[in-house]
Amino acid sequence: MGLGKKVTVIGCGNWGSAASKVIAENTKKYDLFDDTVRMWVLEEKVDGVNLSELINTHHENKKYLPGIKLPENILAVPDLAECVKDTDLFVFVIPHQFVKGTAEKMKNSGQLKSGALAISLVKGIMIVDKKPVLVSDLVESELGVPCSALSGANVANCIAREEFSEATIGYTTKEHARLWQRLFDRPYFKISCLDDVAGIQVYGALKNVVALAAGFCDGLGLGSNTKAAVMRIGLNEIHTFARNFFPGTNEKVVFESAGLADLITTCIGGRNVRCAAEFAAKEGKRPWNEIELEFLNGQKLQGTTTCVETYEVLKECRRLAEFPLFHVTYKVAFEGLNPKELIASLSVKLI
Amino acid sequence: MGLGKKVTVIGCGNWGSAASKVIAENTKKYDLFDDTVRMWVLEEKVDGVNLSELINTHHENKKYLPGIKLPENILAVPDLAECVKDTDLFVFVIPHQFVKGTAEKMKNSGQLKSGALAISLVKGIMIVDKKPVLVSDLVESELGVPCSALSGANVANCIAREEFSEATIGYTTKEHARLWQRLFDRPYFKISCLDDVAGIQVYGALKNVVALAAGFCDGLGLGSNTKAAVMRIGLNEIHTFARNFFPGTNEKVVFESAGLADLITTCIGGRNVRCAAEFAAKEGKRPWNEIELEFLNGQKLQGTTTCVETYEVLKECRRLAEFPLFHVTYKVAFEGLNPKELIASLSVKLI
Repeated sequence: MGLGKKVTVIGCGNWGSAASKVIAENTKKYDLFDDTVRMWVLEEKVDGVNLSELINTHHENKKYLPGIKLPENILAVPDLAECVKDTDLFVFVIPHQFVKGTAEKMKNSGQLKSGALAISLVKGIMIVDKKPVLVSDLVESELGVPCSALSGANVANCIAREEFSEATIGYTTKEHARLWQRLFDRPYFKISCLDDVAGIQVYGALKNVVALAAGFCDGLGLGSNTKAAVMRIGLNEIHTFARNFFPGTNEKVVFESAGLADLITTCIGGRNVRCAAEFAAKEGKRPWNEIELEFLNGQKLQGTTTCVETYEVLKECRRLAEFPLFHVTYKVAFEGLNPKELIASLSVKLI
Repeated sequence: MGLGKKVTVIGCGNWGSAASKVIAENTKKYDLFDDTVRMWVLEEKVDGVNLSELINTHHENKKYLPGIKLPENILAVPDLAECVKDTDLFVFVIPHQFVKGTAEKMKNSGQLKSGALAISLVKGIMIVDKKPVLVSDLVESELGVPCSALSGANVANCIAREEFSEATIGYTTKEHARLWQRLFDRPYFKISCLDDVAGIQVYGALKNVVALAAGFCDGLGLGSNTKAAVMRIGLNEIHTFARNFFPGTNEKVVFESAGLADLITTCIGGRNVRCAAEFAAKEGKRPWNEIELEFLNGQKLQGTTTCVETYEVLKECRRLAEFPLFHVTYKVAFEGLNPKELIASLSVKLI
């Protein structure tokens, strides 16, 4: 006790809570880690009680992961500076639009420990000067700590229920990969490692845009051939995007959980596909925020944000024509194009 | 009329009938082809009437593609020799175990036209001397005509209903690719071409084994993370298999409809997955032939046959250890292993 690396999870949402459960099981298992896992909670009232108090008393996140017993060595902490103090390993799992601001506050707390490491579980890319920036690069530049990334076919509720799942860690050094793999690998959550921090984040972000298009197919009542075609075209556009903007991308990522498996599970059962199906079923006339409120208990969709950001990046560098699926998905989601027009954009010319 | 290439479809099952509909629409569209599409029917009685008569009278295959109006330029022909006579383009779409015998009879009819071409829509590989042999190679060697292949995310009923779908033609020469693409490309059925006859057939065959494993997941009530993991591992084993046995395989096939899209649609909505789900739900105790009778109207599963053949090939060359998913799927399907043991085989070692 006291000698192991101290872990703090930055985030307490659906995935943050499920990831904390995984991590807390492993910190108890390995002497390498300190048992206690701190979880930073952006305080809010739930049934009149502070969320952090609820978690620490009942060992359940009733708002974002209801019905799942959390290990008692998870300590919800609402004060960010207190979370930063003494932490060796930071796990980022907050919506991507909040990463920069949160990292700045962490830096400004003056509590950052020398030699700390970070890993990003955030599904998203940032846009800086209309260019895509990886969440891991942002964390590295803001905090000055090396940042790996974890991504995979990970519907949080399924992992919380301990259904067999996989994920991929994108690493820069093998030493870091070994450490992070021990923090996350469970009998029901198998972790493989790939030397590609960029690739797995690009797939992790852009698959949410494909999931919107797949959800439109569901909402239109189209069958599995069509949905598979949309997913295939989407995978090709993700691949093209990664190759163009992050040339070091390892092409093997497609065979990883962070590659096609994440795309599959996101397009079968994820939140983006459910909300997009509702959007298309209502012919694009129901506002996204209303759908988010009904389907996500107030959480925000990643897919719509990433859809806008991807569109802006591609528009800026005049490459929209190479990404017909991303483009038409944006037009359906934000420019009033009838969802039925989605399919018209998916044709292949005769050779 | 009379100058266009004459097309004959060898097969009248579910996919054969849907493919004939696609083809017959295009033979009417392009002068390149003779309008009439002959469809070889292995004669059987349906409600006391010959199947070929039913098709030619009512323009519907009531047994294998009920509810779909077939173009009137499809001519069902029960005599194989008559089908071979004058045909320029043969489309093979029969269960893979019948290809060799049928091709032999076609050859022996003495009617084979010089300069004829063939394409295989058969999802399967043959085993000769315990080595995998492509259906296209078998057709080429039996008939002495060049044989391309077509494969993709193609649930036949969805294509028959004209839901947007895609497929990939694997070709040896671009000239043949252009011809076949014109025979199959429709606004609702988009065809791309890849110079890899072998790769698309290996994917097309082995994805049915993966679909059995995916179906077991469904039957066990497992979630989308697990199913996506099984599909990912399966894709990797298909890839390894193709690379080992057909070294010329184009790695790009994974990005084609015949690659990951076919895997996805087969594992979401195909017949193998439905039957395998039933098998697992009944704890492996209900015989396959009983399930086939109930779910497939008497047609045979491709997945179970291919599963056995793949197992025999890998056992013969002592490489089962490299294919844990194919191996465990065989053991569940044919050696009484409890379906629940499937997941135990899917672990990744710590690095």
